[in-house]
Amino acid sequence: MKQVAIVGGTGYGAIELIRLLQGHSKLEITKIISHSQEGQRLEETYPHLKSFVPIPMEELNIHALDQEVDIVFFATPPGVSKQYIPHLQSVQCIDLSGDLRLDSPETYEMWYGQEGAPKSLLDEAVYGLSEIYSEKLSTARICSNPGCFPTASLLGLMPAVHHDLIDLSSIVIDGKTGVSGAGRKQSAMTHFSETNENVKPYKVGKHQHIPEIEQYLTREADQQAYINMTTHLIPMTRGLMCTIYTHLKSSVEPSYIHELYSNFYQNHPFVRVRPQDHFPATKEVTGSNFCDIGVHINERTGQLTIASAIDNLVKGAAGQAIQNANIMNGWNVEEGLQLIPMFP
Amino acid sequence: MKQVAIVGGTGYGAIELIRLLQGHSKLEITKIISHSQEGQRLEETYPHLKSFVPIPMEELNIHALDQEVDIVFFATPPGVSKQYIPHLQSVQCIDLSGDLRLDSPETYEMWYGQEGAPKSLLDEAVYGLSEIYSEKLSTARICSNPGCFPTASLLGLMPAVHHDLIDLSSIVIDGKTGVSGAGRKQSAMTHFSETNENVKPYKVGKHQHIPEIEQYLTREADQQAYINMTTHLIPMTRGLMCTIYTHLKSSVEPSYIHELYSNFYQNHPFVRVRPQDHFPATKEVTGSNFCDIGVHINERTGQLTIASAIDNLVKGAAGQAIQNANIMNGWNVEEGLQLIPMFP
Amino acid sequence: MKQVAIVGGTGYGAIELIRLLQGHSKLEITKIISHSQEGQRLEETYPHLKSFVPIPMEELNIHALDQEVDIVFFATPPGVSKQYIPHLQSVQCIDLSGDLRLDSPETYEMWYGQEGAPKSLLDEAVYGLSEIYSEKLSTARICSNPGCFPTASLLGLMPAVHHDLIDLSSIVIDGKTGVSGAGRKQSAMTHFSETNENVKPYKVGKHQHIPEIEQYLTREADQQAYINMTTHLIPMTRGLMCTIYTHLKSSVEPSYIHELYSNFYQNHPFVRVRPQDHFPATKEVTGSNFCDIGVHINERTGQLTIASAIDNLVKGAAGQAIQNANIMNGWNVEEGLQLIPMFP
Amino acid sequence: MKQVAIVGGTGYGAIELIRLLQGHSKLEITKIISHSQEGQRLEETYPHLKSFVPIPMEELNIHALDQEVDIVFFATPPGVSKQYIPHLQSVQCIDLSGDLRLDSPETYEMWYGQEGAPKSLLDEAVYGLSEIYSEKLSTARICSNPGCFPTASLLGLMPAVHHDLIDLSSIVIDGKTGVSGAGRKQSAMTHFSETNENVKPYKVGKHQHIPEIEQYLTREADQQAYINMTTHLIPMTRGLMCTIYTHLKSSVEPSYIHELYSNFYQNHPFVRVRPQDHFPATKEVTGSNFCDIGVHINERTGQLTIASAIDNLVKGAAGQAIQNANIMNGWNVEEGLQLIPMFP
Repeated sequence: MKQVAIVGGTGYGAIELIRLLQGHSKLEITKIISHSQEGQRLEETYPHLKSFVPIPMEELNIHALDQEVDIVFFATPPGVSKQYIPHLQSVQCIDLSGDLRLDSPETYEMWYGQEGAPKSLLDEAVYGLSEIYSEKLSTARICSNPGCFPTASLLGLMPAVHHDLIDLSSIVIDGKTGVSGAGRKQSAMTHFSETNENVKPYKVGKHQHIPEIEQYLTREADQQAYINMTTHLIPMTRGLMCTIYTHLKSSVEPSYIHELYSNFYQNHPFVRVRPQDHFPATKEVTGSNFCDIGVHINERTGQLTIASAIDNLVKGAAGQAIQNANIMNGWNVEEGLQLIPMFP
Repeated sequence: MKQVAIVGGTGYGAIELIRLLQGHSKLEITKIISHSQEGQRLEETYPHLKSFVPIPMEELNIHALDQEVDIVFFATPPGVSKQYIPHLQSVQCIDLSGDLRLDSPETYEMWYGQEGAPKSLLDEAVYGLSEIYSEKLSTARICSNPGCFPTASLLGLMPAVHHDLIDLSSIVIDGKTGVSGAGRKQSAMTHFSETNENVKPYKVGKHQHIPEIEQYLTREADQQAYINMTTHLIPMTRGLMCTIYTHLKSSVEPSYIHELYSNFYQNHPFVRVRPQDHFPATKEVTGSNFCDIGVHINERTGQLTIASAIDNLVKGAAGQAIQNANIMNGWNVEEGLQLIPMFP
Repeated sequence: MKQVAIVGGTGYGAIELIRLLQGHSKLEITKIISHSQEGQRLEETYPHLKSFVPIPMEELNIHALDQEVDIVFFATPPGVSKQYIPHLQSVQCIDLSGDLRLDSPETYEMWYGQEGAPKSLLDEAVYGLSEIYSEKLSTARICSNPGCFPTASLLGLMPAVHHDLIDLSSIVIDGKTGVSGAGRKQSAMTHFSETNENVKPYKVGKHQHIPEIEQYLTREADQQAYINMTTHLIPMTRGLMCTIYTHLKSSVEPSYIHELYSNFYQNHPFVRVRPQDHFPATKEVTGSNFCDIGVHINERTGQLTIASAIDNLVKGAAGQAIQNANIMNGWNVEEGLQLIPMFP
Repeated sequence: MKQVAIVGGTGYGAIELIRLLQGHSKLEITKIISHSQEGQRLEETYPHLKSFVPIPMEELNIHALDQEVDIVFFATPPGVSKQYIPHLQSVQCIDLSGDLRLDSPETYEMWYGQEGAPKSLLDEAVYGLSEIYSEKLSTARICSNPGCFPTASLLGLMPAVHHDLIDLSSIVIDGKTGVSGAGRKQSAMTHFSETNENVKPYKVGKHQHIPEIEQYLTREADQQAYINMTTHLIPMTRGLMCTIYTHLKSSVEPSYIHELYSNFYQNHPFVRVRPQDHFPATKEVTGSNFCDIGVHINERTGQLTIASAIDNLVKGAAGQAIQNANIMNGWNVEEGLQLIPMFP
C-alpha cells in the first residue's frame, strides 16, 4: 500500500478523494491536512464520514511530507500548491487546482489574478488529461489535474481535432455545471433559494478554464485555437455537460464520425461513446469516472455538435486524479474506479 | 368585458391563461373546453384552482363558438387548431400551438410529421412575436402565438439581425428549458427521479422550433438563414434560456452593441436589456411576461454572445398570447400582465 | 392611496411585500428603508425588480416616519422593530418579525436570546392571525404578524380546539419548510449543494415558533397547552406544510370533522378546506395567500391528523401582513391578494 | 463465487442491486430476468450501465432456476414473488417485495388488495431487518426484505421498545420519502413539474407499511401496537426520513437514552447513532447502507423524538437485501457494502 496525504482536507475535492480511495487496493490515506481545522476530525464537519477516516486533521509541514507519504494530492484553492510543490523532492504530487495547468505564468496571472508558478515547475508538471497524455503521465512525478470544463470539452473535441476535421475558429462551447463546482464556500451563487429553479450564465468571457482549453487544442492542432465558451450554473449538485458546436472542414457521413470517435476511445474504458444518434445525460455518469460522449452531424449546415458529460467531482476532479495516480504508478487504470454510476 | 373561450382546458397552457386572466380588466373567461374532461370542473384536476373557475368544462361546439364568445385561445396539441379555426368566422383566434407558425404546409409536415394547415389559413394568421410584429397584429383576427424557444431566440437576435451586424451562417443557439415545456403528459422525460439532478439534450437536430426560428430570421435579414440549435432539459419546472453565439461581421465596441439593444427595445416594456456586462437568469423572470436579455462581445474572437431568458409558460406561451390579445384589441399592451416576477 | 414604508428593504419579506403590493389599489410604496444599502436602488441587488420600484433606499429616520407615511411594515430581523415601534405614534405598524408575538418579555428572552419588548408594547400589539383575530385587528394600530409555522399550525388546529375535540397534551406538529424561510443570509443551511436532495431536522426542541403556537392554543383552550414540534428543511424554495397529529377526546365521524372544519372557515376566503379524504400540497398554494387544509380520522386509533399548507412568504409572512392591513383599514380582506397559485 | 439471479430486472430495485453487487467479492450476477424486456440488454433502457452487465435479459423459467443459480433476488411488484417462491426448493430467496412481510394472509389482502401468500410460505420466511433478526437470518433460506419506511421506523424504535421506555399507544411516525420510492412507473405522483417544489402527504391512513411496522413492534413489545403514520412525498430522488414522536413511560435523562441507543447498536456497523443533540440528514447516507439515528428528549413534555434516515434504495431495499445475503451465508456483514455516502 502506498501512503497518501490530502492537502485541503475540508473541500469537496478532498471529500470525494476520500470517498473514492475507500475502494482502492493500493492506496491508503494516512494524512489529511487542513490549516483551518487542524486537530479536528473530518466527521465534525462532514457527519456522513462517521466511522470512516479516524485520523485527525493536521497542520501542513511541507518538509516532513517528503518522508512521510508516497503521494500528495493538493485539493486546494488557487495559489496554494504552487507555493508548496517546489519543496517536495521525492513524493508524487497530483495538483487538483489550476496552479500548474497553464504553460505561461503571464497567462495564469491574466486569468487567475495572481502571480503564476515558477516556469520550471510548470515545465515539469504533466497535464493529467488521462486518456490523451497517458504516456507522459506514466513517467511523471508531478501531475497537473485538469479542470472540469476542460476535461469534458477536450475529451469531446480531441478526436475531431486530431483528425483535422473541424474549423478551429468555429468552436463554441456551452458549459452547464452543477453547483458543487463552486465549492463549499457560501456565496450568492450557491444560495439554494436563488439557485434552485434557475439557470444563469456566469464569468462570461472570463472563465479561467478558457485559456486551459485553448492551450491543449492549440498543442494538438499545432495552430492557435480560440474558443467561445459560456458557462452556466444549473440547479443540480453534481454533473457537468459541455455542448460543443463546430463547423466541419468538409462534408462527412454521420456514421464515419461516430466510428472515428468510437475507435479513438476504444482502449479507454472511462470514455463511453454513445450509439449513433444517442446523447449522454449527466445523471448517467453521476458518482463515476466516466465521460460519456454523443456526436451529431447537422446535415443541413455541415456542423458537428458534440455533447460530453461528466461528474464534475469525479472525472472532473478527484476521479481523474486517482486515474492519474494509477497511470503514474503503472497500475491498472481502473483500480479503485470501477463504480457503476448511481442512477437514479 | 370581452368574453373568452379556452380550448384545451386541462394543459399547462390553459392553466396559465386562467392564472393570468384573473387580473385582466377587459377579458373574462366564460368557456373552458375540454374533450377529455367534459362536465368536470377544473379543480378536480387542479386543486389549486379551488374557489376560482366555477364553470364546468364543455365539449367543443365549434359552430356555436362564433356567437358565444369574442376571443378563442387554442391551447391544444399539434394538429387540433388547424382543423377548427377555419370554421370560425368572426371571433378573434389566438393559437398557442405550432399549427400556424410555418409559412409552408410542406415544411410543417416535415417537422411535425402530419399534414399542414390550409395555405389560406397560414396566410391570414399573423405571427405573434409581439414586440416585432405589433403593427400587423393590431389589425389581425388570427394570431399564431410563437413557440417558447423562438420567442427567446428571436427577441435575442432581432436587434443584431435588423442592423445587419452578424454573419447569418454562424448562429448557434443553445437552449435550456424547464420541464413544464414538455407539458403534463407523463413520459420518461418528465419522470422526477430521472430528470432531477440531470441535464440532457433532446430532439437533437429535430426540434420543430428550428424552422420557425429560421423562417423569421430569413424574413428579417432578407436572406436564407440556418441555425444550429440544441435544446436541453434542465431540472427545473419553469424557465427557458437561449444562449446565442454569433460572429460579428465587423469589429464593434461592446458599448455600441449594448446601446443598440437598449434602443431597439426602449418602447417595449416586456423586454429588459440588462446593464452592460450583466446577464439574465431565468428565476428573475419567473411568473412574469418579461424577456430579459444580456449581450457580451468576446473581443479576442469577434463574437457576440446573447443570453435571453423567459418564463416558458408566460412570455413563451400564455403571457404573450394575452399581450397579443391586448394588441389586437387596441388596449394597453401591459393590461393584465403587470406582474413582478416571483423571486425567490 | 395610503402611503407605505417598508423597513428592512433587502430581505425576502420586503421583496415579497413589493411583489404583492404591485396589485393593491389602496396602498402605494413610497419609502424603502435599508440601513445596509442606503442610496442604492433595489434592482442592483434584485435584478428581477428592474422597471419596478424607482425609488432609492433610505436610511431609517424613525421620527420623520410618523409624518411621512400611513403604514409601516417591519420586515426586519429579531430585535429591530421592538426598538423603533415605540417611537411611532400615529402610523399603523405591521411587524413581520417575532418581536411582538409573545405576551411575556421573559419568554421572548428565553427563546430569542435577547431582551424582550416593553410589556406595554406587547399589550398593545394585536396578533395578526387574520381569520381568528379579525375583530380585534379591525381596531388595532399595531399588528404583530404571525410566524410561518404558527400560521399553518394554528389555522389547522383552531377548529378542533375551539370545539374542544382533542386532547391538548397529545399535539405533535411535524413542520416542513422550503429554504426561503431561512432568509437571504448565507449559511450552511442554505447552501445548495448540501440542501438539495436532502431532508434534515433543525432547531430540534428550540424553535422560537414553539412558544408562539402554545400561547395561542392556550388562549383558545383556556388551559395550558404544550406541543411537540420538529421542523425540517426540505429541498424547495417556497412552501411550508405542518402535519399535525392529535388524539380525539371521543370518537367522531370523519364527515362530522370535515363539516366542522368547512363551516369554521366558510366566510374566510383564504382558508380552503379540501374535500373529505383529500389533502393539500404546498405547490397548490405557491405565490398565493391561501392556507389549504385536509383532515383525516384514523378510525383504528382515534386520532385526528391535519395537514395544513401555505406559501411561507405569502400567508406565512407578506401576504398575511397585507391581509391585516386590509382588515385594519376596513377594506375588502382580499384586496390585492386575489392571486391564483402559480402551478406548476 | 456464488451465482445470482435477479427477477424484475428493469426496476430501480434491480438496478441498485446491480450497482452494489459490482463491488461484492463473493456474489456474481449470472441471470437477469425480465418478462417485459426479454432478449434486450439492460443498457438499452439504462444507458448508465453501458460496459457493465453484458448478459441479455431472460424470460423467467422458475423450474430451471433452482439448478442454475445459488441466490435469487426478487425485485418485483406486489403479487409476483408469492407465486414463484413456492417452486424453488434449494436456492436462497430474498424477496424485496411486500409479499412475505405480513404474518397473516388476511392482513395482506386488506392492505394490498389481493390474495396473500400461502401461510406455510409466510411461516418459513424470515423478516430481514438485519440488525434485529440476524440470528434467525443466519439459518434462513427465504428472506422477506423489509419495506423502506419500516426499516427506518423499526430501527429508530427498537431500542426504546426493547427497553420498555415508551407508551406504545403514543407512537406517531411522520415519513418523508424521495420520489424513487415510487418506482419507475410514470404517474402524476412522479411528474417532475408537479413534484418539484412541492410536499404532499399520500396514502394517508392506507399505506401498506403501517401493518408491517405494527406487526414487528407488537412482536418486540409482546403487546398490540398501533401507530399513526403519514407519509409524504418530498422533491428529491433518494432518501427517506422518519421522524418518530413518542411519550416516555417515565422521565429519563437525555444522556441515558443516548447511551442506550449507542449501546444497542454498538456491534452493528450500519446503524450510526449521532452524538447527543445531533440529528441525521438524508444526504449524509445517500448511496450507502447506513441508517443514521438521532434522539431528542423534550424535557418540557416528556416526549422522545427520534429521527431516522436511510437511502430508500439501499438500506431501504437493495443494500439491506445484500446485507441479508451476507448473513444467510455467514460472510462478513459489510461485504460489498463498505461505501462512503456520496456527499454532496
